[in-house]
Amino acid sequence: MIRPARGFPKAEFESRTSRAQRLMAENDISALLLTTEAEVRYYTGFLTRFWESPTRPWFVILPATGAPIAVIPSIGAHLMRQTWITDIRTWQAPDYIDDGISLLASTLIEVTAAGAQIGIADQMESSLRMPLAGFRRLEQILAPRAITGDCGITRQLRLVKSDTELAKIRTATAIADRAFDRLPEIAQAGVPLAQVFRDFQRLCLEEGADYVPYLAGGAGHGGYGDVISPATDRPLARGDVLMLDTGLVWDGYFCDFDRNFSIGPPTSAVVSAHEKLIDATQAAFDIAQSGSVISDLFHAMNARINPTAASSDAGRLGHGLGMQLTEWPSIIAADHTPLVPGMVLTLEPGITLPDGQIMVHEENIVVTEGAAEWLSTPQPADIRVI
Amino acid sequence: MIRPARGFPKAEFESRTSRAQRLMAENDISALLLTTEAEVRYYTGFLTRFWESPTRPWFVILPATGAPIAVIPSIGAHLMRQTWITDIRTWQAPDYIDDGISLLASTLIEVTAAGAQIGIADQMESSLRMPLAGFRRLEQILAPRAITGDCGITRQLRLVKSDTELAKIRTATAIADRAFDRLPEIAQAGVPLAQVFRDFQRLCLEEGADYVPYLAGGAGHGGYGDVISPATDRPLARGDVLMLDTGLVWDGYFCDFDRNFSIGPPTSAVVSAHEKLIDATQAAFDIAQSGSVISDLFHAMNARINPTAASSDAGRLGHGLGMQLTEWPSIIAADHTPLVPGMVLTLEPGITLPDGQIMVHEENIVVTEGAAEWLSTPQPADIRVI
Repeated sequence: MIRPARGFPKAEFESRTSRAQRLMAENDISALLLTTEAEVRYYTGFLTRFWESPTRPWFVILPATGAPIAVIPSIGAHLMRQTWITDIRTWQAPDYIDDGISLLASTLIEVTAAGAQIGIADQMESSLRMPLAGFRRLEQILAPRAITGDCGITRQLRLVKSDTELAKIRTATAIADRAFDRLPEIAQAGVPLAQVFRDFQRLCLEEGADYVPYLAGGAGHGGYGDVISPATDRPLARGDVLMLDTGLVWDGYFCDFDRNFSIGPPTSAVVSAHEKLIDATQAAFDIAQSGSVISDLFHAMNARINPTAASSDAGRLGHGLGMQLTEWPSIIAADHTPLVPGMVLTLEPGITLPDGQIMVHEENIVVTEGAAEWLSTPQPADIRVI
Repeated sequence: MIRPARGFPKAEFESRTSRAQRLMAENDISALLLTTEAEVRYYTGFLTRFWESPTRPWFVILPATGAPIAVIPSIGAHLMRQTWITDIRTWQAPDYIDDGISLLASTLIEVTAAGAQIGIADQMESSLRMPLAGFRRLEQILAPRAITGDCGITRQLRLVKSDTELAKIRTATAIADRAFDRLPEIAQAGVPLAQVFRDFQRLCLEEGADYVPYLAGGAGHGGYGDVISPATDRPLARGDVLMLDTGLVWDGYFCDFDRNFSIGPPTSAVVSAHEKLIDATQAAFDIAQSGSVISDLFHAMNARINPTAASSDAGRLGHGLGMQLTEWPSIIAADHTPLVPGMVLTLEPGITLPDGQIMVHEENIVVTEGAAEWLSTPQPADIRVI
């Protein structure tokens, strides 16, 4: 298999930066303050699993003009110097007295005028990856500058993937597709579910994943109870439906889809549920193009799986996908975002079976100029049998 | 190998809760508001990798008396019902109008008096895992109740591990020890570092890891540039020092240690650096007992590796370990936390070689009533040669 090159050309980061700066100007935002892994990486290319450690805050400032400025712990300077960022300011974190706040404040003051608005992501799917006490102190130091919402600027840019981003997501989905095809090697009646989870992650790595940040699933007679549980040591049994849902990463980009398997012959209820899920996925795929809005996809799926109800426990039937396992938007009735070429989505219908168990199916697609394209390999209506 | 049982007895969660409530009473805090994975899991046992999705906020309230109350997306209800928590309030997330905030506010108002202080983690190593706009709206609804700092209550409790927690950490460290011992199977001159990273995670899974949330490392002639970089496709070469640093998880608990290997014969500078790192680790281990404070460990290591400087780019020489890859406290000169039995620490000295490359060594230990105990297997002074 041919892999795309790792990383991005500098021009991609320059383009992201200048497009953000145009939106900042339109919204009277003098600088963006970025604190989360995905935001920092989006503008800088800074890729590390070190975010797993909660100890140190990391900051990037996107000024009104020019390249981003990194204000980071010194342990990250060597790696940040390998990106396109040249203005890198560091402190020795952790510092129990002043953990980067005064350095961050002075840098923000340097690049903004008194009274300026500094934008920070504050809407759904965002979080403040720094201590709240530090943030409150920062607000005090910066006054009369105000920290306001970022008007969703970064979220809006990230919604549409570049060809380079798409190539990474395609690589991730192809790796997971191959791993799923090998599932019969590791799953059969008698094997504990926890062992299946471990072995499936191994298959993902063998097929080329850099790492496997997400694996969930379920197994139970005629369906499962939820889709977010960790594995137990209960052995698989004939009549079980086994579902595995993986978000593996290649060069910082995720896939996110699942597969259902019947251990031995499926019940007629399971056969029927799987057919409905595939039918629903196809119905959304068929209209996933310019002219549709996100809620159209929701209704196309919901009409086939859940015609009498308006919603489900999952709360949505898919979502965006890219640098994170799940991204904006959510496929719900309330989301009217227009579909545009370059949007990568998961289609994820779920169904409740007569005995209260559930089944969920998920595929990954990309919106193009014409018909949508499958990224994961679309599954036949018949559930796979092991 | 004998594995401990998964999960915890209910009594452990009751004990954590009642100890927190005693500290809350002492600090005039009427409820704790928990928003992060580790905090929620510490009091409830709610274990899922679903936190990888940034979409939905999750809340747990610890009232002044009684069990915690979960205020969570409905997708999590089935799994939360398998914990000891019985008061589970849900909303269908994502909700673009009100994503749990009014449900959270009404629950907090129900369990606190007007004018009460509601504590939230706001100091170092914490973050606000909910949208800032939602938090600001919550503060408005709750007034005259105030959201204040949590006085480090949860951090203080988590500092000391129970025997059940320790058994999980021991299991994780033993798994990583075995994986490191198998490194010669996968690493040799000519193998790309990215392949070594993939294969090492596979070894961790084969040896019993549930998942491998963290793997970093480096390889370079006579040392490496930093310890947080992802792998490149550069092949290992004779004369390289290869370092792998893993945080793998068993039943929700981490290990975090590294190993250095020389590909072919090491240079004398590498030999000497490794000896110093082992010597420094042993020096800290020898005094890691009641009567010492954290800064003593820092100085014991620093005197052996860095006698002329007061600090390093890493900023610290180790840290706490448990439910997260890195936990409070940091082994720095400014930390004077007394060592007490049940504290799990990493000892992580680093050294700069004459040519500017670095080397880092790391072991995991637990403080006991007497001498400290190694959790990872302490390494000999001689660097391993492949």
